[in-house]
Amino acid sequence: MATFAELWESLLPIGRDADTGGYFRHAWTEPELRCRAWFAHQAERRGMAVERDGNGNLFAWWPAGKGQAVLTGSHFDSVPGGGAFDGPLGIVSAFAAVDLLRAEGFEPVHPIGVAAFAEEEGARFGVSCLGSRLLAGEIDPDKARSLTDPSGTTFAEAVSSDLGQEALEAFQIGRDDDLLGRIGCFVELHVEQGRALDVPVGVAGAIWPHGRWKLEFAGRGDHAGSTRLEDRHDPMQPFAHAVIAAREAAERHGSRATVGRVLALPGGTNVIASHVTAWLDARGPGDEVVRATVAEIRERVSLAAAFHGVEFGLTPESYTPLVDFDPDLRKRILSALGEVPVLPTAAGHDAGILAARLPTAMLFVRNPTGVSHAPEEHATEADCLAGVAALAAVLRDLAGG
Amino acid sequence: MATFAELWESLLPIGRDADTGGYFRHAWTEPELRCRAWFAHQAERRGMAVERDGNGNLFAWWPAGKGQAVLTGSHFDSVPGGGAFDGPLGIVSAFAAVDLLRAEGFEPVHPIGVAAFAEEEGARFGVSCLGSRLLAGEIDPDKARSLTDPSGTTFAEAVSSDLGQEALEAFQIGRDDDLLGRIGCFVELHVEQGRALDVPVGVAGAIWPHGRWKLEFAGRGDHAGSTRLEDRHDPMQPFAHAVIAAREAAERHGSRATVGRVLALPGGTNVIASHVTAWLDARGPGDEVVRATVAEIRERVSLAAAFHGVEFGLTPESYTPLVDFDPDLRKRILSALGEVPVLPTAAGHDAGILAARLPTAMLFVRNPTGVSHAPEEHATEADCLAGVAALAAVLRDLAGG
Repeated sequence: MATFAELWESLLPIGRDADTGGYFRHAWTEPELRCRAWFAHQAERRGMAVERDGNGNLFAWWPAGKGQAVLTGSHFDSVPGGGAFDGPLGIVSAFAAVDLLRAEGFEPVHPIGVAAFAEEEGARFGVSCLGSRLLAGEIDPDKARSLTDPSGTTFAEAVSSDLGQEALEAFQIGRDDDLLGRIGCFVELHVEQGRALDVPVGVAGAIWPHGRWKLEFAGRGDHAGSTRLEDRHDPMQPFAHAVIAAREAAERHGSRATVGRVLALPGGTNVIASHVTAWLDARGPGDEVVRATVAEIRERVSLAAAFHGVEFGLTPESYTPLVDFDPDLRKRILSALGEVPVLPTAAGHDAGILAARLPTAMLFVRNPTGVSHAPEEHATEADCLAGVAALAAVLRDLAGG
Repeated sequence: MATFAELWESLLPIGRDADTGGYFRHAWTEPELRCRAWFAHQAERRGMAVERDGNGNLFAWWPAGKGQAVLTGSHFDSVPGGGAFDGPLGIVSAFAAVDLLRAEGFEPVHPIGVAAFAEEEGARFGVSCLGSRLLAGEIDPDKARSLTDPSGTTFAEAVSSDLGQEALEAFQIGRDDDLLGRIGCFVELHVEQGRALDVPVGVAGAIWPHGRWKLEFAGRGDHAGSTRLEDRHDPMQPFAHAVIAAREAAERHGSRATVGRVLALPGGTNVIASHVTAWLDARGPGDEVVRATVAEIRERVSLAAAFHGVEFGLTPESYTPLVDFDPDLRKRILSALGEVPVLPTAAGHDAGILAARLPTAMLFVRNPTGVSHAPEEHATEADCLAGVAALAAVLRDLAGG
């Protein structure tokens, strides 16, 4: 079997921008479909059966053991211009851990599965962890079907785009209790996304509550030269206040609030914008803190919008409350790994969504840059190998009976 | 011949967005090429010879009279989502004024020409009044050739796109002294772009100095959840300060400063932006006022950028100093029209650029909404007819010997 480095490098070029080194692997675009083909190929090489659920999530099953499975894995899709590790490290490490266990002659008492969840970043359809949310019944399937990407393609169209006609007829979007019933627990390995880990591997404590909100500003397009300041309805003004209010509210409340995406129309240099749409990402150590952060932003921006004669709307697009991973599963993992630190995370994960239905846990691999969702995101090969060894130890313990 | 209303309505549907009513007539796109065909057709119907210079400007010549011509006209191209009147009103009114003069049996002593200047709004290649700037030698032709639109097409490619192979070989971008020498003066009719005119027709005093600057912010893309506030290099923050500083500096200096166009990359909801690019439009009653406005914005934004660890650059893209139209020509027009108001304008025009080479003047037609560069831009039919009558009176006087 291939070494971890060989496995990793076989996936690395897919969807990487040659100029920036950032990844563009949006769900069901050509690069992500190539990742899915890579997944099927790796499963086949290992004699693992590939299953695809109605929500576009992939599973590769080691055909051994009985009863409920121990599931591991992560996701392929990236944010626009994202790093190489966020998601794929968990899938590559899963196959590498299977290889390690096989090489030592391990025979699973419970089945072991490797998962690749769909649209974890929400970069195409706007809702994060969409594949695991649907599987777990945490989002209305009809709402999910009608989510559209910027070109107008619906999720229902995308999720069916890699299916043949026969499979299409059997396929169903939404909660899958049969599949959930076959899984005993889910352990996701992921690159750390801050600088909270100073040893190679750690275990997740809790996931901060986090959500995204759409900000809409409707003003009036006008001539940038001849329109007096007092006659303007310029939506860019309250939008700018929103960006600053997000930062200041996060400072005050000990939370995080970010505006990283904006669209101003019609977008002429000598034209006052008529509409600005932007998105707010907010997170914090508790639900109350996030609520207070967003409420403060809403209040400050409403005042600025009223001053500038601009209509303002703030609409929640998704929200995930505080997730504390299963304490018994964490205890068992900690005893299998020995002394490793437990750390919270401000990033959302499929393991956080599935925690509503199953015992779940996460392993983190150290990221020396502390940067994530950008090309500088990194983990050393030595730390990745430590991650594979830790994951193998966990699978050995959990699937060993 | 057609009435003004018939002429106007024959042009009206071209490039109009069905949803918003805004116009998308960027230079050398399909709608603007249809406007150019409309121009050739109107010239042909009137037995006027069409000339196209190397810079893509169109001229239709009434074959009568001797010596230097009296030129009128304006431009077809629009800002994105612009109004129907800014530009086209001057061309339609020019043909309508020719019809009026012919109907009364007027015989020009000096030739009369109707012009359609190229890329006045700068909406495709970023430099306003590009066609008249090139004709007048107010921009380096090599610089102009290599200007690119957002898809990477150069101005040199666009300007040659409507020429046959034969014409292409003869064609030259840049100052055209032969053509300039044939023009005695240029009178541009234009819709007023503010609320400064309370009678149907006025005459331009001066054009405010105006320019555009590119703002570039280079930060570091990062995870919107897991990156601590103190570790961020978020370019959206100093960008937001630029938007607010523009408004406040304009208030303080009695000028106008606008940010209507912004691009944030990579543009993910849960990603801190790595780069923000935006454009500043600034104008005022004098050069010193505009300089002071931009200097204040630069200073405030530099401080905000330094605080956020973001690299900031402000680069001028175009600048047109204060233009006072030819006083003798204005006096002659005022005496031909009787009592009409003289008003300054904060908008740039081809007549302002050509003022460096020729006596130029402008007539304004009242805009009851005061809105421009937007679908609400308007002039009543009665005011448009008053504009045509005024333009005919001016041509009768100037071309009458």
